[in-house]
Amino acid sequence: MGPARGPEESAASLGVFDSGVGGLTVVRALRHHLPSEDIVYLGDTARLPYGNKSPETVIRYTRACVSVLLERGIKLLVVACNTATAHALPTLEKELDVPVIGVLEPGARAAAAHSHHGHIGVIGTRGTIASGVYQQALARLAPHARVLARPCPLFVPLAEEGWIEGPVPEQIAEHYLAEFREAGVDSLLLACTHYPLLINTISRVMGPKVTVVDSADATAETVADALDRLHTRAAPGNLGALTCMVSDSPDRFAETGRAFLGEAITHVEWVDL
Amino acid sequence: MGPARGPEESAASLGVFDSGVGGLTVVRALRHHLPSEDIVYLGDTARLPYGNKSPETVIRYTRACVSVLLERGIKLLVVACNTATAHALPTLEKELDVPVIGVLEPGARAAAAHSHHGHIGVIGTRGTIASGVYQQALARLAPHARVLARPCPLFVPLAEEGWIEGPVPEQIAEHYLAEFREAGVDSLLLACTHYPLLINTISRVMGPKVTVVDSADATAETVADALDRLHTRAAPGNLGALTCMVSDSPDRFAETGRAFLGEAITHVEWVDL
Repeated sequence: MGPARGPEESAASLGVFDSGVGGLTVVRALRHHLPSEDIVYLGDTARLPYGNKSPETVIRYTRACVSVLLERGIKLLVVACNTATAHALPTLEKELDVPVIGVLEPGARAAAAHSHHGHIGVIGTRGTIASGVYQQALARLAPHARVLARPCPLFVPLAEEGWIEGPVPEQIAEHYLAEFREAGVDSLLLACTHYPLLINTISRVMGPKVTVVDSADATAETVADALDRLHTRAAPGNLGALTCMVSDSPDRFAETGRAFLGEAITHVEWVDL
Repeated sequence: MGPARGPEESAASLGVFDSGVGGLTVVRALRHHLPSEDIVYLGDTARLPYGNKSPETVIRYTRACVSVLLERGIKLLVVACNTATAHALPTLEKELDVPVIGVLEPGARAAAAHSHHGHIGVIGTRGTIASGVYQQALARLAPHARVLARPCPLFVPLAEEGWIEGPVPEQIAEHYLAEFREAGVDSLLLACTHYPLLINTISRVMGPKVTVVDSADATAETVADALDRLHTRAAPGNLGALTCMVSDSPDRFAETGRAFLGEAITHVEWVDL
């Protein structure tokens, strides 16, 4: 028997989906903001990265992953992958009975809020930037802003290799970010969950006048609001458990993921996708 | 009606499998050595890269891809992906009725032949190097050689981005290759089909005394020998057609693949994998 719960408390978990380990930066923020929530995470590590894949392929893979999370009886789904949010969120919102929160809307809102002069930069994978969803969201949320959006494809392998400081990441960041400095952006949104690992290098290259915005925090706050609105928060005394599922090697996920989660990953299951 | 063929000429195609565009460096060598052969290429671009995936996953994906090529009635299969060769070649050799040639044996043989002092270096993906197959092949082919094998994971995204010259690739190459220079290797095998795009940078960093060996040429020669032995060469007058199939966007494949193939890619089909 579990502990007694109040009438508005839920024993169900939050489901978090990502193409790989990057979504663990969102889990980290969720565990910070919502420490009592149980979380089931699915990383489609066998088929990552999604960033360069076509919308059709991303939707197909996302559907398959989400159905695995639904089997676990989740009460809310967080799509912690920017590419999947960009391509598959409207489809999921139509098809699913549980609420779905992507990283797009919270991230775009935070980027707009941190821009004082209305020059907003957005960096992400090729797929995310080409989809135009961040540009569209910002055009809606900050209609007078000037938005510059560019892909930074090398940032993902750098983050995954843990090569996040030193002259090589710095030169690559200089290469990608020069255009943003020249354009005078005052708020730069990291529209890829891998990029927060490079936040020190990115911030140094952009200089002190630019706010670098990580969408993970904004997403976690949006999830907290949704749980309150739906009256489905976990009991405050619950010790928020984290279960991870992956479609490729659990060991490598636990090893790489540690830097993304900010704590050791103890329980990883393999799922056949 | 097609052109008349001699009794030992075959109308069937060569099948070439890779996880993405990298295998096109092998196709380029095949088209150079065997210009009359029709080639059917399958790149599993939706699920690339294979380099960091587990052996079980690589075998599963390779089987599915190869069955698509077999449906096209190929006479010989080239596994142009080092990771798939490392993990899946023994399985394929057991299960298939057509001859199977991987990039491992030809590449290792060429690296051994080019080493005059018996200090051989091998670079590839994490999966290829960790599998130990090149180290084992070289231990068999050059039992007295000293072999140093290390992964260079950033080389694949650099090649795919076309970022193959300049200070950033050079610094990354310096970082990965310093150990090989210090060890005094005199022959360095590129055990990943992406790496030939970086051969100028790699050769410059290694210096003029080191032979950098690309396994594509050696593989093409092995295929030519096999066709002669099996009496299944295409008719000499045949205009070697190339058909490409991919599991993700055909357009992006045609665009990225051009640098790997060394010529425009005109015919790309999408297949559901």
